[in-house]
Amino acid sequence: MISIVLPDDELRHRLGARLGDARVQVWAPNSSDPLIGPIDLLVLPYMIAPRELRHLRGLPISMVQSQTLGYDGVSETLPSGIRYCNATDVHEGSTAELTVGLILAAQRGIPDAVRDADRGVWEHRRHPGLADKRVVLVGVGGVGAEIRRRIAPFGAHLDLVARTPRAGVHGVDRLPELLSHADIVIIAVPLTDDTRRFIDSRFLAAMRDGALLVNVSRGEIVDTEALVGELQEARLRAALDVTDPEPLPADHPLWRLPGVLITPHAGGDTDAMDARVDGLILEQVRRLRAGEAPLNLVYDAAG
Amino acid sequence: MISIVLPDDELRHRLGARLGDARVQVWAPNSSDPLIGPIDLLVLPYMIAPRELRHLRGLPISMVQSQTLGYDGVSETLPSGIRYCNATDVHEGSTAELTVGLILAAQRGIPDAVRDADRGVWEHRRHPGLADKRVVLVGVGGVGAEIRRRIAPFGAHLDLVARTPRAGVHGVDRLPELLSHADIVIIAVPLTDDTRRFIDSRFLAAMRDGALLVNVSRGEIVDTEALVGELQEARLRAALDVTDPEPLPADHPLWRLPGVLITPHAGGDTDAMDARVDGLILEQVRRLRAGEAPLNLVYDAAG
Repeated sequence: MISIVLPDDELRHRLGARLGDARVQVWAPNSSDPLIGPIDLLVLPYMIAPRELRHLRGLPISMVQSQTLGYDGVSETLPSGIRYCNATDVHEGSTAELTVGLILAAQRGIPDAVRDADRGVWEHRRHPGLADKRVVLVGVGGVGAEIRRRIAPFGAHLDLVARTPRAGVHGVDRLPELLSHADIVIIAVPLTDDTRRFIDSRFLAAMRDGALLVNVSRGEIVDTEALVGELQEARLRAALDVTDPEPLPADHPLWRLPGVLITPHAGGDTDAMDARVDGLILEQVRRLRAGEAPLNLVYDAAG
Repeated sequence: MISIVLPDDELRHRLGARLGDARVQVWAPNSSDPLIGPIDLLVLPYMIAPRELRHLRGLPISMVQSQTLGYDGVSETLPSGIRYCNATDVHEGSTAELTVGLILAAQRGIPDAVRDADRGVWEHRRHPGLADKRVVLVGVGGVGAEIRRRIAPFGAHLDLVARTPRAGVHGVDRLPELLSHADIVIIAVPLTDDTRRFIDSRFLAAMRDGALLVNVSRGEIVDTEALVGELQEARLRAALDVTDPEPLPADHPLWRLPGVLITPHAGGDTDAMDARVDGLILEQVRRLRAGEAPLNLVYDAAG
């Protein structure tokens, strides 16, 4: 019989009888309740800071399953002896969905329409669209691939960029030229030591006047101070689902600069997420029972 | 040599030498300047009310070219002796683009994010998405087809509805059942005597609680009073690029009801429009010179 820890009653209720004869406890890393081990699979809360993984130290846990795609910071905080699986295929689609939503909203003037509506003002202005625009997508992993699929029917010219050039994908060495022509630049790379502050003042300076920077990955990939500088001069626009820091403090300049649209790190969190999380957990349980290797094992501190 | 009337200097400048040896005048129907006839082709301003077509009475004009797709009201106001061409293929893509933008913005909480940002508030809430949702698209003409193409990669269940059922398209008789399951209902039918107030209190009552009504066609297709009633009870949501009346007066209840997103009839008006208008006019000029039938002849008051 396998032993599972779920982070909340809602998830236990959703999974219910589908967990079969597994022994299920509800417990989260910030809980002071005792945990009855050994634990084969502990599912983390959706919103958990990597530093909270330190609470797992010394507990009899074989493997944790996160509900997020990104796992920056995990390698520093995950106690040894525990394997870590991320939530690949759970959030890519909804993050890509929000990416297209942010682009269309920013291009078509929806933020101004919302503000006008609150004042009862009908003011028709011409806006740019997405059709015919030049779009540079930096990052062609899971999220990037989903963004690419959803943008395809809109009639934009899409240039893909990754670290290593290959068929249909430019290398980062081509960025200076691509950025100088791009109307929209989308950041969809994971946060690593290589990508931290990758969008620096030089990258931003290479973007053409009026271009839109879209970040749906991690705030730390952008040099926020440099971005604020460009936005204060209204030279660039930005649509950001992620910021540095998060949450953004009430007095942060990003909130009120012109041409900025911010959503509160909502990329992966829609009601489409639940069924995908449930499916992933049930598949991991099936694999544990069958003695098969887990899905999405991205960090093996047991090794 | 053919004789052309353009509504503004900007369009004349854009077309420039591409009009060849045509005689070009700049004149709009509300102008008091004289018009030197005969005129082979008069291009209407983009924003013109059908009643203004009465100003063309008695003028030596063979054919007018509009810059819009809809032509409701034209048959009553177009003076006899003038042929009328609409702007098919100019606006469908950008209207479909805004439709998807409105849906994603409304579903993913972008209006609330804009309001939160203006107050410096980072408040993460879960929102619905478009993936896995049931979408009913009423109208499978030019705009409907473009909406369908752009929604396809988002993973929603799309039901198409038209007056006449055919392969892959439900007839309107299926609407009561389809509406009862739909999360999102998109109106993309032209305004005609048959579709005026087609979205009436019965149609709205058939929609499920919390569903989103999206109108990108003409405001008069919806019974606004009935819609306001549903919105006041927060039973439905709405994303409207068109309203009845337009412009919406500052004190109209639609502006401030919960769950309503309004854009000011901006569906077709993006910077992608110009190249398409130019191409249409140049093709009509070519056809006039070649003695070929014009494109998009939708109303022939010369007959």
